Amino acid sequence: MFDDDEILAVNAAYYAAFKDRDFEAMSRLWAEDGVSCIHPGWVILLGRTAVLGSWRDILRNPDQPVVTCRSATVIANDDEGRVLCIELVEDIAFAVTNQFRRREGVWRMVHHQASPINYAPALSEEEPPPGRLH
Amino acid sequence: MFDDDEILAVNAAYYAAFKDRDFEAMSRLWAEDGVSCIHPGWVILLGRTAVLGSWRDILRNPDQPVVTCRSATVIANDDEGRVLCIELVEDIAFAVTNQFRRREGVWRMVHHQASPINYAPALSEEEPPPGRLH
Repeated sequence: MFDDDEILAVNAAYYAAFKDRDFEAMSRLWAEDGVSCIHPGWVILLGRTAVLGSWRDILRNPDQPVVTCRSATVIANDDEGRVLCIELVEDIAFAVTNQFRRREGVWRMVHHQASPINYAPALSEEEPPPGRLH
Repeated sequence: MFDDDEILAVNAAYYAAFKDRDFEAMSRLWAEDGVSCIHPGWVILLGRTAVLGSWRDILRNPDQPVVTCRSATVIANDDEGRVLCIELVEDIAFAVTNQFRRREGVWRMVHHQASPINYAPALSEEEPPPGRLH
């Protein structure tokens, strides 16, 4: 597989672990060091203990709705790559970055950030409307 | 300088360009390829044309408030690094990732994402409260 396909496969495994509430799979997907995570509305989580702790809570939460990934695009460079995608959580859309790092031939997750967005769930090359608050 | 200091210096230059509404400086800070940006509430911007177009609009906007960066932390690895920080925009706080890539000895920005947060502007190693919507 090309790097982009490999990264998309790991990205898909991440959403599968999320859907299956599979903490062990989620734990294996994240790298051992240099990890961070910004869930919507949360503080910045630094380090594997904080990040995996958040996932343990999320995957245990019986009210956690299913999260689906749409419009995934890869930007990769050597042994670093990120997926830009839209997450749909019920009828709420989030713009998402999932960052991956390859070591010894294995891509693992090092960063996740999801931001609520107001627009229809689509990627765009177009310029945004001017005058919005940064 | 160590890599972390170099990355923090470029991160500081980014906020200086923002504060000074200096589009040329902002343009130089961003890499030529492989760039993306997720402003709060916006669609995902892919590619230098879309990203710099957004910055041209933001820096021209007379109503754009000053953005300050707090609690910057670096996670770096070879020629890739990211800054996790809090942006304060008037009394609104955002959790932010600024991603940088080094080529030919020069660190340039490749990704920015800012998410609104509900908490006090501080980084935390603590686990978040359970049961929040992902």
